[in-house]
Amino acid sequence: MKIALDAMGSDARPVPDVDGAVQAAREFGITVILVGDQDKIKTELAKYDTKGLDLPIVHAPGEISMTEHVEAVKAKKDASMNVGVRLVKQKEADAFVTAGNSGAAMAAALFGLGRIRGIERPALGSVYPTAKGRCFLLDIGVNTEVKAEYLYQFAIMGSCYAQRVMGIASPRVALLSVGEEEGKGPITVRDAYALLKNSKLNFIGNVEGKDVPHGEADVVVSDGYAGNIVIKLSEGLAETLVGFIKAEIKKRPVAIAGAMLAKPAFDALKTKLDYAEFGGGILLGVDGVAIIGHGRSNAKAIKNAIRVGKQAVEGNMLDAIRTGLSAS
Amino acid sequence: MKIALDAMGSDARPVPDVDGAVQAAREFGITVILVGDQDKIKTELAKYDTKGLDLPIVHAPGEISMTEHVEAVKAKKDASMNVGVRLVKQKEADAFVTAGNSGAAMAAALFGLGRIRGIERPALGSVYPTAKGRCFLLDIGVNTEVKAEYLYQFAIMGSCYAQRVMGIASPRVALLSVGEEEGKGPITVRDAYALLKNSKLNFIGNVEGKDVPHGEADVVVSDGYAGNIVIKLSEGLAETLVGFIKAEIKKRPVAIAGAMLAKPAFDALKTKLDYAEFGGGILLGVDGVAIIGHGRSNAKAIKNAIRVGKQAVEGNMLDAIRTGLSAS
Repeated sequence: MKIALDAMGSDARPVPDVDGAVQAAREFGITVILVGDQDKIKTELAKYDTKGLDLPIVHAPGEISMTEHVEAVKAKKDASMNVGVRLVKQKEADAFVTAGNSGAAMAAALFGLGRIRGIERPALGSVYPTAKGRCFLLDIGVNTEVKAEYLYQFAIMGSCYAQRVMGIASPRVALLSVGEEEGKGPITVRDAYALLKNSKLNFIGNVEGKDVPHGEADVVVSDGYAGNIVIKLSEGLAETLVGFIKAEIKKRPVAIAGAMLAKPAFDALKTKLDYAEFGGGILLGVDGVAIIGHGRSNAKAIKNAIRVGKQAVEGNMLDAIRTGLSAS
Repeated sequence: MKIALDAMGSDARPVPDVDGAVQAAREFGITVILVGDQDKIKTELAKYDTKGLDLPIVHAPGEISMTEHVEAVKAKKDASMNVGVRLVKQKEADAFVTAGNSGAAMAAALFGLGRIRGIERPALGSVYPTAKGRCFLLDIGVNTEVKAEYLYQFAIMGSCYAQRVMGIASPRVALLSVGEEEGKGPITVRDAYALLKNSKLNFIGNVEGKDVPHGEADVVVSDGYAGNIVIKLSEGLAETLVGFIKAEIKKRPVAIAGAMLAKPAFDALKTKLDYAEFGGGILLGVDGVAIIGHGRSNAKAIKNAIRVGKQAVEGNMLDAIRTGLSAS
């Protein structure tokens, strides 16, 4: 197993990227190809004990910054993202992982890998923590405009991800809508409902916003506008709620003492909600495994993004999507 | 000031409805007209000391259940919702409040009151608690399909509400999108951005999901699909987070003791997030003040819904919308 990592991806590049790669190579026993400026990578890598680990470097002098647009992806053929994607295309790596500019990363993966035959639109998905464990949410921001057929394909791809990467035998697939009944929601959702009802997926109908954190579905399908709002609102609301609690506790000396005693419980919650545990988004529908992490990824997030890539490869996710498309 | 209350509205009708009406009449010194089955209302009202309070009853023998559809609104002319709305139309009441079937309530208000001249689509709005106080969110479920012009009008109406009911002098109005920059999001949002940029509103551009609980805007405008997801996801996520914390605390005896000491802080949080504090949704764009509360309203929620109606009347919200439409 070889994973190509964009070593010049994260905001704090290449520090967490290289650190995460070393951890992943050690923990998972895989090859992590570090793609980027070779001098910078070598300097960083020298800080770690890498004896017995397989961490080859592929030089890529170019970089795409967090503020650059899709045009930069086309122009900078030697950028670490483009070189990393090319390694997958040329079968020199099994998957590509980056914590770089997500718009640019999607463009690089789409231009470099192409779409899986039959897929109309790739979608970005993300694991989301629920009361019952985790669910998979897509699209979270690529397709702000959708057709019912796209949502239908997102459902197939999401179901494959949940099966092959998350290990859920028969994932409960749902459409995100404003009410549970068939006929609720925008026209595209209603039309997608009709398509999914007749599919071979374990389609459980619509779920509402509250059902997502409650864990009522394993795969939640929406357009990229609503999905992006779900992800970002959840992040902001969790922060706000914790802030509310802290502020209220601070007002009360006795509560401060109580909160100190209860701190391990809060730390456990923090771990549960930590995006770094999830390993970033995955771009589904491109003809290759491409994982796109947060720009502010730390080493753990990078390691987990590499783990997600590894699981997608081991689970033959791409084949599952191809088969799912023709069978559903 | 006379508020017409649907006494047969809430799930537990008429108990919390009548209780809330009595509290509102006493606390606000206003007339609350109780609309519904007069025998049931009289029996319920007899449980309270109503000396000195103005709580007239207007008999309406019909009821619309929580499962009935819009057709029931048209068929049952004598339903409490229709009679209540008619009191506003005939200027016998200044506002109408119900905790009944929200789809039916919106239909009753729309059929009975009509739209404000120039308004293309009425929208349902709701107050939302933020880190900085409160914001106003619309549409939260009526218009799952929108045009840019609708969003533009929602922004005007929301700004009027924030000014006249929430008392914010110059409300910061924002569009909910997937990124802050102009040009991010669905076409309708991008087109609405162009319209709002040239309006007289205090338009601050796009906000993302995380900015809503952070309190970055006073008025957050979206289609009814995204807005509904925001409201319901927030409800579900708050429940889930509190559940996570409780579960983690239970695992740790010391944390249990701590949590007991910190309990007053959690109770304060609960109050902050309690929908009953906000007084329900408001249907903006109809030619009259119509407040639509949760079906599971308790007496406090009913009282607060009546308060919102009173504030909208006192603040001349309808005139503000009319003026806003022609001035923006």
